[in-house]
Amino acid sequence: MSGTLFGVGLGPGDPELLTLKAHRLICRARVVAYPAPDTGESFARSIAAAFIPPDAEEIVVRVPMRTEPGPAQAAYDRAAVTIGNRLAGGMDVVALCEGDPFFYGSFIQLFERLSPRFPCEVVPGVSSLTACAAALSHPLTVRDDTLSVLPATLDDDALRRHLDAADGAAIVKLGRHLPRVRALIGAMGLTSGAGYVERASLPHGRAAPLAEAPATAPYFSMILVRRRERS
Amino acid sequence: MSGTLFGVGLGPGDPELLTLKAHRLICRARVVAYPAPDTGESFARSIAAAFIPPDAEEIVVRVPMRTEPGPAQAAYDRAAVTIGNRLAGGMDVVALCEGDPFFYGSFIQLFERLSPRFPCEVVPGVSSLTACAAALSHPLTVRDDTLSVLPATLDDDALRRHLDAADGAAIVKLGRHLPRVRALIGAMGLTSGAGYVERASLPHGRAAPLAEAPATAPYFSMILVRRRERS
Repeated sequence: MSGTLFGVGLGPGDPELLTLKAHRLICRARVVAYPAPDTGESFARSIAAAFIPPDAEEIVVRVPMRTEPGPAQAAYDRAAVTIGNRLAGGMDVVALCEGDPFFYGSFIQLFERLSPRFPCEVVPGVSSLTACAAALSHPLTVRDDTLSVLPATLDDDALRRHLDAADGAAIVKLGRHLPRVRALIGAMGLTSGAGYVERASLPHGRAAPLAEAPATAPYFSMILVRRRERS
Repeated sequence: MSGTLFGVGLGPGDPELLTLKAHRLICRARVVAYPAPDTGESFARSIAAAFIPPDAEEIVVRVPMRTEPGPAQAAYDRAAVTIGNRLAGGMDVVALCEGDPFFYGSFIQLFERLSPRFPCEVVPGVSSLTACAAALSHPLTVRDDTLSVLPATLDDDALRRHLDAADGAAIVKLGRHLPRVRALIGAMGLTSGAGYVERASLPHGRAAPLAEAPATAPYFSMILVRRRERS
């Protein structure tokens, strides 16, 4: 009997935003896996730290942050071999995922490699989308609103087209794109309905009208835009 | 000192998908409020039932399901008065919300009426969006994907335009619109990348390729579409 790969969403950062199910699976885990940068701490591990059993095996997936995808793909390939060995040996593996595993999650890399061969269950988590809306007191979607989720890596023309078409939008993966995106939103006359959030739900998080956003944004930041005035 | 209005997301239906924070707030609540249909049980209450203290006051917001908005608005007006009285008297009120409070949540109606006068905190929950993705084993967004959330109440032209523009889409509020939306997706050649989910995370839930969806859908159902093939 193979073990099961659990992709467990941890929510946006506050450990109290773990689900009861994530909490149960982590507390009982014998093997956990999580992504980490080249050097330094894993954000996913830091969210779940208080609940990981001291004697659990920890598989650290060190993902190099490069513009070319090769090194990251190789890291996921190696991790899939290690995790696959545990699963083949009958052990369950709990993969820790910031936010929700299927919402821009690096877990998808493991899922694609391992789900064809092993049982896999995804435990959804609170996504950054709704966590940022809560932090800003900004309802995401009301009645028959449409919502577009847009990576800030899109060029201005594409962003403008999407922002024009939807009632509301969430612009994710801001980082170094913040000044450009903010200028675009200003040129479109949407600044007054826009909010900025970084590190939602964490003690050093920040939520403010876009006009008061800082000059530079961390990777974990988002802009929420409301295009249409609600009646 | 006023009490605080907590809008607490309960997740899609499985009580284990409550967050630890929602669980804590509900277990300690002295006043809870939740929406319910004209007659019959409240879905929100059913999710949290095991955790509501037996001696908590329960404010039931009976929301008439009509096409015209008047009766529902009047129900929210009345509920806001009752809840406002508790808050003004210094009691916290825990409003129970299916999914996430700000993702098509009826809580927004209470929030708009009460947040100008009372402290209000939204506790984000697992939304149907990520719960349906988990149920279908369907990653929502990878790398630089865009995602559109679209109510099935949009007409065919609008749906087609949005589906053409995004890498992936979630079509919510299906209900009686399922046959029309399914036909549109078929005409656009997107059926093979589409999945259908109803009552995600519940024991009687269902998740299937769209081609195998039933003829009629309940209100709590969703179609996920992947437009662009991933490399």
